[in-house]
Amino acid sequence: MSGRVWGILTDGFLTERNAKTAHGVLRYSQAEVAAVIDANHAGRSTLEVIPEVVRDVPVVKTWDEARDLGATSLLLGVATPGGWMPEHWRAWILDALRQGYEVVNGLHSFLSDDPEFVSAANGSGARLWDVRRPPDDIPLFSGKSLEVSQGVALTVGSDCAVGKKSTALEMTAAARAAGVNAEFLATGQTGIMIAGKGIAIDRVISDFAAGAAEQVVLSAEPDSEVLIVEGQGSLWHPAYAGVTLSLLHGSAPHALILCHQVGRSAIEEPPYTELPDLSEMIEVYERMASTVRAARVACVSLNCQGLAAGEARDSVKAVEEATGLPAGDVFAGDAPKLWNALAANLSAQ
Amino acid sequence: MSGRVWGILTDGFLTERNAKTAHGVLRYSQAEVAAVIDANHAGRSTLEVIPEVVRDVPVVKTWDEARDLGATSLLLGVATPGGWMPEHWRAWILDALRQGYEVVNGLHSFLSDDPEFVSAANGSGARLWDVRRPPDDIPLFSGKSLEVSQGVALTVGSDCAVGKKSTALEMTAAARAAGVNAEFLATGQTGIMIAGKGIAIDRVISDFAAGAAEQVVLSAEPDSEVLIVEGQGSLWHPAYAGVTLSLLHGSAPHALILCHQVGRSAIEEPPYTELPDLSEMIEVYERMASTVRAARVACVSLNCQGLAAGEARDSVKAVEEATGLPAGDVFAGDAPKLWNALAANLSAQ
Repeated sequence: MSGRVWGILTDGFLTERNAKTAHGVLRYSQAEVAAVIDANHAGRSTLEVIPEVVRDVPVVKTWDEARDLGATSLLLGVATPGGWMPEHWRAWILDALRQGYEVVNGLHSFLSDDPEFVSAANGSGARLWDVRRPPDDIPLFSGKSLEVSQGVALTVGSDCAVGKKSTALEMTAAARAAGVNAEFLATGQTGIMIAGKGIAIDRVISDFAAGAAEQVVLSAEPDSEVLIVEGQGSLWHPAYAGVTLSLLHGSAPHALILCHQVGRSAIEEPPYTELPDLSEMIEVYERMASTVRAARVACVSLNCQGLAAGEARDSVKAVEEATGLPAGDVFAGDAPKLWNALAANLSAQ
Repeated sequence: MSGRVWGILTDGFLTERNAKTAHGVLRYSQAEVAAVIDANHAGRSTLEVIPEVVRDVPVVKTWDEARDLGATSLLLGVATPGGWMPEHWRAWILDALRQGYEVVNGLHSFLSDDPEFVSAANGSGARLWDVRRPPDDIPLFSGKSLEVSQGVALTVGSDCAVGKKSTALEMTAAARAAGVNAEFLATGQTGIMIAGKGIAIDRVISDFAAGAAEQVVLSAEPDSEVLIVEGQGSLWHPAYAGVTLSLLHGSAPHALILCHQVGRSAIEEPPYTELPDLSEMIEVYERMASTVRAARVACVSLNCQGLAAGEARDSVKAVEEATGLPAGDVFAGDAPKLWNALAANLSAQ
């Protein structure tokens, strides 16, 4: 990833949840970011518009402006419903490719399957990186992930977009700060852009999804001591529960970290299924994991977005009382606390 | 499907479980079968080698012999592990295609992606039917399957190859015999060959697997009164549990039919996970279904293969006592009994 400077397209959605690819890369990528491209917020800076990403870069209107600020790579930073590309991005992508700049795409539809994009890239020598394209040779799940020597943890969630990726990244950083060689393992497009490797499990043919999760675990660096796997979806989100279960079985974790947004009582997409309470979620995740390996939820990662600091503290305390587990908000500095809970769980095995 | 006459390749595996595509088509297809192609059993008849398929056709050594007996379509009748094509089938497939005969393929690897097969087919005008190729435009699960007017039932299983497809087909036939316009909905390659339509859920990109299951339900004939959906995998088979859950949520059944092989106590593929007792399986399936729609297991379909008739009757009785549900063996004439249990469940809703 060295030398790459991102220009991140959010196309009016910078403050929306479906710009979570942009938010994740802004917050966690090791690479430089020249600008965010978003006409609705142009002229301001990311810290003004979305302070939670921590990084401060200008928001501009066009790719040309981002390029003039030093961008070398156009990153499509919005996760559209179903993952298909809005047709009006075509001209913008073609411009960047014809100018010789890399385009990085996390959507389900691949730029490298499109003859017009391929021809533009070939003409200028630009690179097309379809982050979600899985390897060709994923084997079926075989149980090899049960044999890895590292401690394996997986973040699981009550819903999509509650903080599974951020929790895994923040806890990995907390483990490293505590002197443990932890590795974040990416299973989704944003995680892969941040980590530089991984497999987008939701893009794999369903028969091979558990096998792909197993391969992600087997791909860990040999000197890693603890693997923290990025979770996907939720057992209560019917569109994606199969992906969630494939990941739960395929990665064969020793421990789970339950992620939840305070106050969310139903899945936020159709058919808006109701969420049970956290204790029942914990029981169901542990039960479904146990098919492959007994794993307990070690701690609860609470997304307290939108709450005042006092309310957030009260919520954390209430969850600790209700579940009997350590809880915390990784965005309020609780990652070390959650890491300690995970480390205790792993060393007890 | 009119006019098609199958020649079914089993390549030495005629008596093995992975010839279940061949067995299913022999037993349930409305189309004629000219011969089975299997060098290990050539010279005998299917009723001698595998009496359970009911249909009696000769077993021959080569495609040419099957063709001379009237075959117009070469059906690849063995499900290989992971669904990839054995390389030594290439010459046989090319022969049939060059002679102008259709080749029907249920494997994960598609003949129509292979330039040599495509060229041979184009040269002679032969048809390539990749049964597992999903439609291009499958939407995400949206909950529309919750709104269909028909009663929907899904077969679920303790493991692969326990009788989910056969149970769905036999119960559909029993319902029709009882004057109810029931429709079998196929979700796997053999079922699609038999029904002539359907989507192979395990071949769909995992993000869209629940959406595909929903589309299968929405594709039912408008005059069907009851839909019996073919199940896939098992929540206890870690390689495929994600597929199973996608189907359970996406098809949004009103009732479930649990299928099990008597005596099977563990999944028969790595990592050989242990099966809980039937009551626990019922509880877990009902619990996981309830995310989308409350559905009870209406009856238990027991595969009593290999048991003497008396043992089989005792097993059925023991399961009825242990679960409190009607149980039966569809291969021993119990499909009407199971259909009655399902009908009672559906009409109670």
